[in-house]
Amino acid sequence: MPMQRNSRLPEGSADGESVEDTIIVTIEAGFWKRLQDVTFQAVLPYQWRALNDEIPDAPPSHSIENLRIAAGLSSGVYDGMVFQDSDVAKWLEAAGHALRCARNDETFPQTLRETLEAWVDEAVRVVARAQAPDGYLNTYFTVAKPGRRWTNLRDAHELYCAGHMIEAAVAVFRGTGDRRLLDVAIRLADHIGSVFGEEDGKKPGYPGHQEIELALVKLASVTGAWKYLDLARYFLEERGARPCYFDLERQSKEYTVIWDDAETNPAYHQAHLPVRQQRDAVGHAVRAMYQCVAMADVALVTREPELVTACHALWESVVDRRMYVTGGIGSTRHGEAFTTDYDLPNDTAYAETCASIGLFMFADRMARLDQDTRYADAAERALYNGILSGLSISGDRYFYVNPLEVVPSECDVKPSLAHVKYRRQNWYGCACCPPNIARLLASLGDYFVRAEASTVTIDHYFSGCINAELAGQRMEIELATRYPWEGEVHVLVREAPTDSVGLVIRLPGWCEDADVLLNGESIATRSAADHGYIELRRVWVAGDEITLVIPMTVQVIRAHPAVRADSGLVAVRRGPIVYCLEEQDNGPDLHLVSLAEPSAFSLDCDSELGGVTVITADGYRQSADAETLYCHDKRQLAGQACKLILIPYYAWANREPGEMRVWIAGGSC
Amino acid sequence: MPMQRNSRLPEGSADGESVEDTIIVTIEAGFWKRLQDVTFQAVLPYQWRALNDEIPDAPPSHSIENLRIAAGLSSGVYDGMVFQDSDVAKWLEAAGHALRCARNDETFPQTLRETLEAWVDEAVRVVARAQAPDGYLNTYFTVAKPGRRWTNLRDAHELYCAGHMIEAAVAVFRGTGDRRLLDVAIRLADHIGSVFGEEDGKKPGYPGHQEIELALVKLASVTGAWKYLDLARYFLEERGARPCYFDLERQSKEYTVIWDDAETNPAYHQAHLPVRQQRDAVGHAVRAMYQCVAMADVALVTREPELVTACHALWESVVDRRMYVTGGIGSTRHGEAFTTDYDLPNDTAYAETCASIGLFMFADRMARLDQDTRYADAAERALYNGILSGLSISGDRYFYVNPLEVVPSECDVKPSLAHVKYRRQNWYGCACCPPNIARLLASLGDYFVRAEASTVTIDHYFSGCINAELAGQRMEIELATRYPWEGEVHVLVREAPTDSVGLVIRLPGWCEDADVLLNGESIATRSAADHGYIELRRVWVAGDEITLVIPMTVQVIRAHPAVRADSGLVAVRRGPIVYCLEEQDNGPDLHLVSLAEPSAFSLDCDSELGGVTVITADGYRQSADAETLYCHDKRQLAGQACKLILIPYYAWANREPGEMRVWIAGGSC
Repeated sequence: MPMQRNSRLPEGSADGESVEDTIIVTIEAGFWKRLQDVTFQAVLPYQWRALNDEIPDAPPSHSIENLRIAAGLSSGVYDGMVFQDSDVAKWLEAAGHALRCARNDETFPQTLRETLEAWVDEAVRVVARAQAPDGYLNTYFTVAKPGRRWTNLRDAHELYCAGHMIEAAVAVFRGTGDRRLLDVAIRLADHIGSVFGEEDGKKPGYPGHQEIELALVKLASVTGAWKYLDLARYFLEERGARPCYFDLERQSKEYTVIWDDAETNPAYHQAHLPVRQQRDAVGHAVRAMYQCVAMADVALVTREPELVTACHALWESVVDRRMYVTGGIGSTRHGEAFTTDYDLPNDTAYAETCASIGLFMFADRMARLDQDTRYADAAERALYNGILSGLSISGDRYFYVNPLEVVPSECDVKPSLAHVKYRRQNWYGCACCPPNIARLLASLGDYFVRAEASTVTIDHYFSGCINAELAGQRMEIELATRYPWEGEVHVLVREAPTDSVGLVIRLPGWCEDADVLLNGESIATRSAADHGYIELRRVWVAGDEITLVIPMTVQVIRAHPAVRADSGLVAVRRGPIVYCLEEQDNGPDLHLVSLAEPSAFSLDCDSELGGVTVITADGYRQSADAETLYCHDKRQLAGQACKLILIPYYAWANREPGEMRVWIAGGSC
Repeated sequence: MPMQRNSRLPEGSADGESVEDTIIVTIEAGFWKRLQDVTFQAVLPYQWRALNDEIPDAPPSHSIENLRIAAGLSSGVYDGMVFQDSDVAKWLEAAGHALRCARNDETFPQTLRETLEAWVDEAVRVVARAQAPDGYLNTYFTVAKPGRRWTNLRDAHELYCAGHMIEAAVAVFRGTGDRRLLDVAIRLADHIGSVFGEEDGKKPGYPGHQEIELALVKLASVTGAWKYLDLARYFLEERGARPCYFDLERQSKEYTVIWDDAETNPAYHQAHLPVRQQRDAVGHAVRAMYQCVAMADVALVTREPELVTACHALWESVVDRRMYVTGGIGSTRHGEAFTTDYDLPNDTAYAETCASIGLFMFADRMARLDQDTRYADAAERALYNGILSGLSISGDRYFYVNPLEVVPSECDVKPSLAHVKYRRQNWYGCACCPPNIARLLASLGDYFVRAEASTVTIDHYFSGCINAELAGQRMEIELATRYPWEGEVHVLVREAPTDSVGLVIRLPGWCEDADVLLNGESIATRSAADHGYIELRRVWVAGDEITLVIPMTVQVIRAHPAVRADSGLVAVRRGPIVYCLEEQDNGPDLHLVSLAEPSAFSLDCDSELGGVTVITADGYRQSADAETLYCHDKRQLAGQACKLILIPYYAWANREPGEMRVWIAGGSC
């Protein structure tokens, strides 16, 4: 059944027709400007070198080389993970976003822009040559397993890699107007559409790792071709059918073993139930999130109640019961997966960077589906904590796993902590996270502000500019803030339509109070908010200024009593930033440190960590010495008052390695 | 170099000559009488059925059947673990101890005695027939791998099984006077002596799993043949030599793969260093303990300073830094092994029953080596807690792993808890623990009291009788106590030598105060104790009565601050018994329960759990409900005062399954 169009898709655009952005968001200063500068000037060049195997002592990527081999430009054998193509695709997507920023920001360094354009050009040429005449594109099968295409959807990641290449193509097209990669993506998507589907002779399959679905929605959006949305929906709808496609292909004589021939665990792939019937977030967390993004994408078009209900249930399962205070999700390394409600161990946490990125994207779609700030609250939690923690201050070191408690000496010896690194890594054999964070940071503007019909919605605070087309008229808004370190956000109207339009601003869910001023006069507080949003609808004039005043108090956080791992512990948050203790500032044995309640808090700026706000708190440190292993008086509680230094969680492990802890013993007096 | 004899070995006894016991300890009433009754009347018959595969729904043992096949009495193929023979050997040892008790206790049920004798006779006949003409005895190799003897000492457990068979032989001989199995053991030991050693043509090997060493010391003791002590010492001394024997045999063309062909981890086998240089308890905990027992056994004979130093260092490594409050040791399932100092997680604990039994045996040897109650203190801790926890009240259900915190719903889903059972098991595929606890409980008298020269040392309190020969004269002592539930121990002299002899009584290390009365008058307190022992040396007359008065207060225990897992938590102990909370008495979510400090404690007797003393304490229960996953006020700490019911840790899991917790949140007011 073909889908009905709705306003998300550009009316009247034909296949392959360029779509103009109706909103341009430019980050010009402050916290996110520094991060985007790092992304463009350090991360992207570093990762290009990594993909080209030019980082000394790093695990080789071989991903560009695989493409060159597939393109006939190099001889050699395939190397790396089966999904190695996706690293190049994610980098290309990030570079596409960067070039779009460069287009809209005259301060973007010209040399860097030219360098990025040259690298993109080089990569696009190789990718295009690596594509088979029929549109198929995957270097693992082309080089290492010719003739074995589509014989193991469960493990082989062909549709996953295709999805990332489609996302890359959309980004490069939007960033440069160059449609060569988009044409590759269209041929690839059309080839996939010829292989999979309900029709006779097609394979009734779907990917082991979701990603193609959300990519096809993007392709539909940029091309205006509804068939890609239909194909995305097909992949979603087929998931969970019985008998399980992964079992059928495994029994087929064409089956190709990739990792091993283990039994399928349908829940790992979210194939245990039809997606509309899914209520709990289960299995591999990244797969689950990418599926949720696509479900919400489709629900945004179709508004089918069953799908909307499933999206809500999955959202609540993740955010209300299975999410770390940092926005990390997927608490176990066993399958990089969700476990059970409230099972959030701090030391063995997996909390993959990619999974938090997936949550951030899911939140974006949900906010569009269902106007409620709870989505942007969760997105902000993930972004400022569990996502940013994946990137070093310098931009060239990464975390894949984001624990909330680290004791290096334990990581060195405990098999259960083998996945936990306490030094940021220069690359990974499975390098999904580094280019994922790059593409996200390069495209933040897409997530911070939305323009729909006659409304601009500001979900996240930044310093920069919004240029939107509202009801055919231009609106220009300037934002200025020192957020997340200070709580004032200035929203200045530079140019406005002559008709009444709405400015909708999120009040953060983590504070009870917030004051909204219009031209210096208080006009609203939290009590006026609708699902967390303040809507100001009027005929705006240039010079109108909204000021959002958010109290930035230091908060002592407690987890739900069902979270066993946090029992008796507290976390410290200020604004959206979750804090942690590091050994560098507080000495070793952080489990012996407790936070005084109440505590005075003082703030400082730490330049070593990129200008973050550091919190000093009152604490108590139990003596580390004791005479005996067990003791039946309180001698072993001796200790003394101390000052605790807390730094933003995301900034941990940027100095010498040492212990780190988010959840701290609470309640000392 | 042959060893010098010392007083531990019977002077002048010739090979194979029967040795009379110089001390007979009979448990006649009270706590340990109930345990021995269960051991003799329930455990031994149940385990005989298990070894004969007669327990419905239990993992089959096949161990008697393997022996029957090896003996030519049955056809079939070998089944079970490679060390399955040892289960029969441990059972035979237990039965031998039981028959020794029967000899010294006229109340021992006659029918049971005859039944045990018949089973022992049956087993001994089969074992004797399974022995090869040259003395070799191991059904795995005889039946499943003929011609492959001694080709994989690391994994094949031949010397381990031989050790247990020798221990069985000594016990059966001491219990019945029947020397058929002793002759089997002697032929086996002589065969082993012909295969291993420094001499040309012999293998310079040693066992992957220690056990033969301590068994050979016992064989030397009972036969008076020093060569067995020399062989024990050889095996100890060879361990740690480089190149590692396990690597040499693995490179040999005769090598037989048993589990897999993995690289040797020398520390797992305590082969990383020569034993005299070992200072930290590492690797597989049972192997480590059996080695320590043998090291102390040899040190008792040779008094070599290096060996004594190593024994002390290893003791302190285990007991001062690597032992649970229950006396459990070996904190990880990875290799059933020790990890690092103070690494004592409660939920993932391994704490194998066999390892605590090994610690108990090590303590016994150390107490003989070095008169200090710290050894018996640790032995008592292990016995009343981490060992007894391995046996159900009924005697027919077992624990191999002894966690200190259990949440059944987590055990059901978490791979890291796959080894943790919350229901006692009716048998195990690897059934080392059940017959190990049987042989220990059947031989407790050997550990409770020692007689050396003109001194009787009482390390553990029980109700029963001591008959000792001191300097050629008879001494008879009666003990009466309700220990561990009450703290008075009455020691009544029934008959005494005419010369001055010493009665040495341990004061438990867990209490500061204890009063010692002689014929009703206080004669000593703790301050008079020498390394924890009170020594009363005099000419005793029949009717003299010593009364030991031990205050049995409820103690709130804290762990060393370096034990991260116990940070902020307390345990409850009364006398030697460590207590726990069970869901049965306290409801679910035990992590939300805290102990009030100070708390009043009241005591009750629980008949359902075999008459244990149950403690009621003041506590606080945090509400399990909360509105949000994270919250920045103290709402999530709401709760109410409650009563906590604590039962002895060893008695947990004797009712319906549920949560259990030893370490409880402390400090609520």
